[in-house]
Amino acid sequence: MMETVHVPLDDRAYDIHIGPGLLVRSGELIGPFLRRPRVAIVADAHVADLHLDTLCKGLEKNGISVTSMTLPQGEATKSWPHFERVVEWLLAEKIERRDIVVAFGGGVIGDLVGFAAAVLRRGVRFVQIPTSLLAQVDSSVGGKTGINAPQGKNLIGAFHQPSLVLADTGVLDTLTKRDYLSGYGEVVKYGLLGDCEFFQWLEGHASSAADGDMAARIKIVKRSVQMKADIVVRDETEQGDRALLNLGHTFCHALEAATGYSDRLLHGEGVAIGCALAFELSSRLG
Amino acid sequence: MMETVHVPLDDRAYDIHIGPGLLVRSGELIGPFLRRPRVAIVADAHVADLHLDTLCKGLEKNGISVTSMTLPQGEATKSWPHFERVVEWLLAEKIERRDIVVAFGGGVIGDLVGFAAAVLRRGVRFVQIPTSLLAQVDSSVGGKTGINAPQGKNLIGAFHQPSLVLADTGVLDTLTKRDYLSGYGEVVKYGLLGDCEFFQWLEGHASSAADGDMAARIKIVKRSVQMKADIVVRDETEQGDRALLNLGHTFCHALEAATGYSDRLLHGEGVAIGCALAFELSSRLG
Repeated sequence: MMETVHVPLDDRAYDIHIGPGLLVRSGELIGPFLRRPRVAIVADAHVADLHLDTLCKGLEKNGISVTSMTLPQGEATKSWPHFERVVEWLLAEKIERRDIVVAFGGGVIGDLVGFAAAVLRRGVRFVQIPTSLLAQVDSSVGGKTGINAPQGKNLIGAFHQPSLVLADTGVLDTLTKRDYLSGYGEVVKYGLLGDCEFFQWLEGHASSAADGDMAARIKIVKRSVQMKADIVVRDETEQGDRALLNLGHTFCHALEAATGYSDRLLHGEGVAIGCALAFELSSRLG
Repeated sequence: MMETVHVPLDDRAYDIHIGPGLLVRSGELIGPFLRRPRVAIVADAHVADLHLDTLCKGLEKNGISVTSMTLPQGEATKSWPHFERVVEWLLAEKIERRDIVVAFGGGVIGDLVGFAAAVLRRGVRFVQIPTSLLAQVDSSVGGKTGINAPQGKNLIGAFHQPSLVLADTGVLDTLTKRDYLSGYGEVVKYGLLGDCEFFQWLEGHASSAADGDMAARIKIVKRSVQMKADIVVRDETEQGDRALLNLGHTFCHALEAATGYSDRLLHGEGVAIGCALAFELSSRLG
């Protein structure tokens, strides 16, 4: 039970595999990309506690040796000090241009580690293993990487596409209900963006997907990723169409700033509220 | 008296203008690239003392307003703390995606500021105004930007092409003899790399160029830049041919490491010695 979305970006094309049990199959899936049987994993500390063993065993089963470091959970990690720490650690581990770095965690880890890979020796490849629903449907597609500045979120970064994304829908079982629903805010956004049929299907299947219906989860992740990929392919560096993806995000960013980017408001919650406010505003403006 | 070398890198193509008096003409030359009449200049402190006034007047003459910051001279500037300072300053100055950052100084400034531009808002354009002979013939072409890590030089960075390069050959008058000759080490390398005629011409014109013969200087810079551009166009991200440019650099890097990257050995001096050692080694190996 694995589905694949191909993101056709010329020489930066890559696949997103979606399904349960992908951590266990990581060696078989990542192996073909390696020039030597060794990867460096940068993981969210909380995710590492729950799933790093499974991932390492999946890699070692195929003869791939692993070195890893962990970073604290939370938005504050997307900052210069942690970024420098990751880059220096990758250098200390002698990661070369042809090696692969694995980002293992939610959006914070994907953004930060992708950016570290982008600047390490002027660019090494990386594989994303997003572990939150939000990261699986959103930050794993599109190649936007970066960290936050005092002046605002994501102001420092690079466009750097992953070589492969493994979205393990089984891992979503260990999310809190609140984290799952926050990611679902972005999913609903894709429905609202221009796929009425998907939106209606979501109305009927949201609960079973939240409760663990794996086929429903795969459909949710696959359709969201496909819609984002279609838009990104049309506008990789955000000159035009890609702005569509920002539906609800103007209000969301204001709300996030007002709540100090704390966990008082999760990103997907802000997107859900932001979409509602955007529609309310559109309606008032006629 | 201005010559131009075009670097034809598809949508990243740009021109290198070469000649005396380009600082005075900066407004006229940079103006067409601006979406609003404002630039941010990051300059080497020593170069700023000598030439920043001239550059600012050249820009202001065409109605372009200027904000600037300076960095200390020397290789130690190519490090995390100065890099962060530049990025944060550019954000504080509200430099947007469509603005232009000007790098004004030698190779250190070009590498660091180019890298800062590469990651600011995931990429803003920059103009290089290289002020040393070494930077004019070498680091202003090819889009390699970056900073040093404790593990080695240039290990952190990006490929980011400038939008324009102004190589003002008049500014070379204010170089020390030693700095000029260090740059000349790279020039000779281009002759040795595969242009026998240029090498022989250099044998006859090196002294007059050093003494200020502007036509000779323009030829030196133009031919070097042209050769480097030809190679870079064949191999932008250094998968093959670009390694040719490293002639003499293996020994050079060892010598630089042994002298602690201090001014006991300038880069171009290392290249000159490195070329001689490389030929000696080739000859001994038959």
